[in-house]
Amino acid sequence: MAAIKACNILITGANRGLGLEMVRQLVEIPYPNRQIFACCRDPDGPKSKDLKDLAKKHPNVVKLIRLDVANANSIKEAAKKVGSLLGKNGLNLLVNNAGITAHGNMLTTSAEDMHSVFNTNVMGPFTVIKEFIPYLRTAAKASGTPGMSCNKAAIINISTILASMTCVGEIYPHWTAFSYNVSKAALNMMTVLAGMDFKPEEILVMSLHPGWVQTDLGGEGAMIGVKESVEGMLRVISGLTEKQQGAYMDYTGKTLPW
Amino acid sequence: MAAIKACNILITGANRGLGLEMVRQLVEIPYPNRQIFACCRDPDGPKSKDLKDLAKKHPNVVKLIRLDVANANSIKEAAKKVGSLLGKNGLNLLVNNAGITAHGNMLTTSAEDMHSVFNTNVMGPFTVIKEFIPYLRTAAKASGTPGMSCNKAAIINISTILASMTCVGEIYPHWTAFSYNVSKAALNMMTVLAGMDFKPEEILVMSLHPGWVQTDLGGEGAMIGVKESVEGMLRVISGLTEKQQGAYMDYTGKTLPW
Repeated sequence: MAAIKACNILITGANRGLGLEMVRQLVEIPYPNRQIFACCRDPDGPKSKDLKDLAKKHPNVVKLIRLDVANANSIKEAAKKVGSLLGKNGLNLLVNNAGITAHGNMLTTSAEDMHSVFNTNVMGPFTVIKEFIPYLRTAAKASGTPGMSCNKAAIINISTILASMTCVGEIYPHWTAFSYNVSKAALNMMTVLAGMDFKPEEILVMSLHPGWVQTDLGGEGAMIGVKESVEGMLRVISGLTEKQQGAYMDYTGKTLPW
Repeated sequence: MAAIKACNILITGANRGLGLEMVRQLVEIPYPNRQIFACCRDPDGPKSKDLKDLAKKHPNVVKLIRLDVANANSIKEAAKKVGSLLGKNGLNLLVNNAGITAHGNMLTTSAEDMHSVFNTNVMGPFTVIKEFIPYLRTAAKASGTPGMSCNKAAIINISTILASMTCVGEIYPHWTAFSYNVSKAALNMMTVLAGMDFKPEEILVMSLHPGWVQTDLGGEGAMIGVKESVEGMLRVISGLTEKQQGAYMDYTGKTLPW
């Protein structure tokens, strides 16, 4: 099991798929006073039932937070709430996992789909990072150790191999999501630039491809299950150092070409 | 001089900088019945005076078209107007040149800047391509020759080396434009995917980096003048074949890493 020693962890889109499985696996890794801020759009809705049950079972660890990444005010509210629960250690690990897709090639993709996917997949992480950076800074300063790691202060942007201009061509004819691929390429650039912006403060930033996973987004024809994907991702996250600042890797630890 | 034999050419953002110089140089390349649709936001405004003078001097070649790439209705209107002037040969060469930038790193860039830069630099080319694709198809069919070239049917997206995740790190500390870089990475992905979408119809699509040019956008410290940049770009454009479908090149013809 991955040795993640981050004390305070926040995950967006935590009610389903990869986000939910990440909370499930992290709960099983013992760590003193750990808090997992499991964020989702509608904690009281039927799609959040599994997460709610998990939070009830682990009330001291899993904190359910209302956060809609497509809504800047919702992100601000969530940051306030999380801030009040964090205490002096700050936030160690932020996982920008929430994302949406829309089917279609360039001509069948509408302007509305482009805006909506951009808003969730690009503006979501953009605003989440900006609102939570004070807590990541607190964690980086509080750690007292040099270098970078997910246990100190780190931002993981859940990306995709479809954000790779080098690799997308092989997959696009079979899984055609123009707006999604464009948005994730933008997100990868955000990872690279944020990695430069936050390097002096020793806050780690990287993009992680979860594999082609059997989730609502990945579909039934996908190659791996959520359990395998999340196990791999947590292993990769636990081993990150300053050498991976701004990196683009998959769930097996392989570096992907841009 | 570059041997561009495209009959009908459209350039967005043609009133200033690279766009204006492109019109200037193309006017000097003789070709029978050539029409250059020089598009800009406000053809009657003071910033379009030089282009207006050029159009007056070459009334049969340069057609001034009102087109604001940040406004979908304006693009639709322009497409109607251009369509009525094109005739049966269609549009051979579309240059998505219009673009804006905003200064700032991740934390100093506002959500408003992100939206506005995305709207012009990503949604602009997206909508322009969608509205003008029928005319590019007409040109591709009308050409009667196999393969791809700028003389047959081509889309050139003016990109930047700052869209390269591989190269951006060297430049970002000196020319810090977070929103611009993110938008242009998205545009590069659009080039790759549009290149796949339009390959069966033999419409060429590629991304072109003009160099770091002394324009309003590039600033006075830039390395080359607009004349040199445009001469290089027209040379590269004139030599494109189906081998460069989805490519990312600079004004000297060098392929750039993503």
